[in-house]
Amino acid sequence: MAKNITKKSENYSQWYNDIVLNADLAETSAVRGCMVIKPYGFAIWERLQEELDKMFKKTGHMNAYFPLFIPKSFFSKEATHVDGFAKECAVVTHYRLKNSEKGIVVDEDAKLEEELIVRPTSETIIWDTYKKWIQSYRDLPILVNQWANVVRWEMRTRLFLRTAEFLWQEGHTAHETKKEAVEETELILNIYADFLQKFMAIPVLKGRKTESERFAGALDTYCVEALMQDGKALQAGTSHFLGQNFSKAFDVKFSNRQGKLEHVWSTSWGVSTRLMGALIMTHSDDQGLVLPPKLAPYQIVIIPIYKGKEDFKEIDSFCKKILKDLEQNNIRVKYDNRDSYKPGWKFNEYEVKGVPIRLSIGKRDIQQGSIEVFRRDTFEKKCLKTKELVNSVKLILEDMQENLFNRANIFLEKNTFEVETFDEFKEKIEGGGFVLAHWDGTEESEKEIKKLTKATIRCIPFSDCESGTCIISGKKSQRRVFFAKAY
Amino acid sequence: MAKNITKKSENYSQWYNDIVLNADLAETSAVRGCMVIKPYGFAIWERLQEELDKMFKKTGHMNAYFPLFIPKSFFSKEATHVDGFAKECAVVTHYRLKNSEKGIVVDEDAKLEEELIVRPTSETIIWDTYKKWIQSYRDLPILVNQWANVVRWEMRTRLFLRTAEFLWQEGHTAHETKKEAVEETELILNIYADFLQKFMAIPVLKGRKTESERFAGALDTYCVEALMQDGKALQAGTSHFLGQNFSKAFDVKFSNRQGKLEHVWSTSWGVSTRLMGALIMTHSDDQGLVLPPKLAPYQIVIIPIYKGKEDFKEIDSFCKKILKDLEQNNIRVKYDNRDSYKPGWKFNEYEVKGVPIRLSIGKRDIQQGSIEVFRRDTFEKKCLKTKELVNSVKLILEDMQENLFNRANIFLEKNTFEVETFDEFKEKIEGGGFVLAHWDGTEESEKEIKKLTKATIRCIPFSDCESGTCIISGKKSQRRVFFAKAY
Repeated sequence: MAKNITKKSENYSQWYNDIVLNADLAETSAVRGCMVIKPYGFAIWERLQEELDKMFKKTGHMNAYFPLFIPKSFFSKEATHVDGFAKECAVVTHYRLKNSEKGIVVDEDAKLEEELIVRPTSETIIWDTYKKWIQSYRDLPILVNQWANVVRWEMRTRLFLRTAEFLWQEGHTAHETKKEAVEETELILNIYADFLQKFMAIPVLKGRKTESERFAGALDTYCVEALMQDGKALQAGTSHFLGQNFSKAFDVKFSNRQGKLEHVWSTSWGVSTRLMGALIMTHSDDQGLVLPPKLAPYQIVIIPIYKGKEDFKEIDSFCKKILKDLEQNNIRVKYDNRDSYKPGWKFNEYEVKGVPIRLSIGKRDIQQGSIEVFRRDTFEKKCLKTKELVNSVKLILEDMQENLFNRANIFLEKNTFEVETFDEFKEKIEGGGFVLAHWDGTEESEKEIKKLTKATIRCIPFSDCESGTCIISGKKSQRRVFFAKAY
Repeated sequence: MAKNITKKSENYSQWYNDIVLNADLAETSAVRGCMVIKPYGFAIWERLQEELDKMFKKTGHMNAYFPLFIPKSFFSKEATHVDGFAKECAVVTHYRLKNSEKGIVVDEDAKLEEELIVRPTSETIIWDTYKKWIQSYRDLPILVNQWANVVRWEMRTRLFLRTAEFLWQEGHTAHETKKEAVEETELILNIYADFLQKFMAIPVLKGRKTESERFAGALDTYCVEALMQDGKALQAGTSHFLGQNFSKAFDVKFSNRQGKLEHVWSTSWGVSTRLMGALIMTHSDDQGLVLPPKLAPYQIVIIPIYKGKEDFKEIDSFCKKILKDLEQNNIRVKYDNRDSYKPGWKFNEYEVKGVPIRLSIGKRDIQQGSIEVFRRDTFEKKCLKTKELVNSVKLILEDMQENLFNRANIFLEKNTFEVETFDEFKEKIEGGGFVLAHWDGTEESEKEIKKLTKATIRCIPFSDCESGTCIISGKKSQRRVFFAKAY
């Protein structure tokens, strides 16, 4: 199978597609721009969901569900929001089909009075709902998240990275005070950063977006940015401080502790199936996918090596014992005893799928009391004593999780550059990576740099100010910001 | 709060709505026919999902995700399917809006060549995908499930019971042989029955649907039927044996073990947020929702009773100790120490929300080493020794789970009647409940009975044949079937 994967160094984009397809993660569908997430890919997404969901719930959030459709007029209520979202979208105009001579056709008698938009994001329908939920400060905060599908009619799509329909979570919170809402925005940004670093083993930069890169309707957008192996940045998650924009647009007021009516403060935040793209592009190699153990649907695969039925019986029952031992220790294991595939085929299959550890077990291993262990990230093979197997693989899994993060972190550090002049800037940007450079804070300079280099400001770091000179305008600058070419 | 709930005996339908609204389960939205599932309602749905998902995975199924949209032409490929589903549906015709003098309008330049249907069910898009996945018997079985939103343009909607958009799971499996596919259909039916009975404490009848009630495109539809407190039946889940209908429609063949090409055998099966309606209508009373402990988001609520701040401090820290003890024993607990609400208000709140056990803890309780325990299903109050609390509540929770099932089962048994004549039939049907009566097996008789009494055949039991006389035609009958008026 690995032979079907283009080398990363030869064609990065093809390498990415090959991994998505060969590791059975996703594929294109008959519907333009919509993907099918295959069982193995979805199992990884479920691991992501499970861990993130735990983190949200631990910090007091609950899930809910809001309608898929949004009345067209809702988008016009928040002035900047409509420009950002209502344009490229799926529009439902009719609610019935009928038979005709040409086959089934849209029934023109079933035209909707007002068109419905398939949600590209749910602020508007949710704030229309919150209006009913919020009267008093006692109803606040509302800390709600939704796991849902959304649709944005993208013209150029790539599996996981940009698809017309994608899966995501969108949090929508309502607060008494500005301070509380800002704190929530920060809390979530830190959850995202922790999740990416600790579970996905992806190092990230944290910061705020410039005005031009902000979410349509937000006063401030915080983000986590990761660096892919081709030197391009990927925005992995965003957390928005919305101020009172949506509560004003939908007229959501509460009586505060002083008995006065006030508009509610709010945030929204989300990560999507795009994270799958980040996962693939951070860790994978020319052999296929590489998965951090904490996110792997199977952390270990056991493959029996046997000749003939007699042999199989003994080995099969031994493998099942090992499987049980491992599972009892909360390790996720797949035992592949299918007879229709040869061991070599299976080795390849699970290497491409990025299963962290492979155990191959034959007759001699049973006799010698040891098991051959293969480790996906380093390709190391060694024999472990069967008696110590559980503890040994636990240590390997921990080590692998750490190793993947460290490897990616070294890559990030090696590819983050501080420059002083625009010439240096251009050179570094061309080579890929994050470039920290002085910027005068104007949209004009931001646009000019983008025009000349295709680099965008990925984020403004939260760190202290440092005065300097803007690389493009030569004007005074208050701080350096992170530039990169991005997905 | 309970005062807002209409008595069941006065107006059953209003009682149902009052519970949905007052227990904070769901509400209508600005979009016709689409509901908002509120955090507490969604938490119950998550418990349902979690348990069912475990059962699916334990039997070898994996989750995946398929597109929300289905090209219109796909529906025409399976002849009966199109009549069942393509009619009342949301049709996407355009992919862009634009600004105009009238505000934002649909951009006529962005008309889709082929309209897209928002999935009412996914057989067609999935079988179009399976075509790519299946070449050989080695690719089978495919045991895939999807948790998703679907849309059917219902004209009369009721929260959870019938909404234009609803959430569900839909399993879609592919098999080598007819036998395997039939076994899968049965396996899933038994999973549904077990789940309803053991987790939801809802007794069910199992059987097959008549031809006229079958899923559009199925050769056989198995179902589980439950009885609501108003004597109406509710179809709680269906499992369909699809034969080779969809594999033929989408031309999905595999080379079998003899090397010959053959069409794949298949099943599909689903339960939806309708189960929430079944849950509510099986157990609830005039005080509000009643939840089986296994499904309750919080099995216990702790409410501190205090006067003044000093009092609160002591009681609060004691309550937190109790909370910790219970949580360490895997009991789901909510501790409500909000000062902005009085204990009486909280008592009411959690009674309406159906929390199985309430612990109220005051100063005297701490001193006396005992805690007052209130049990939602029987309204019993008693004092339990603090030392034995964990074990005592565990026993109560188990007993309550059993009690709710038994109560519902007695109701089901009391309201299941065997009749011989059409007069008897009419009388029993009028009073509500399941009526077991002889039917000659023709669609004509089935229709006639429906016309005269509004009763439908809920299911044909799997039990042995018994010859008799059809209650309506007087012709020979092979077996009795279950009739009822239904949701």
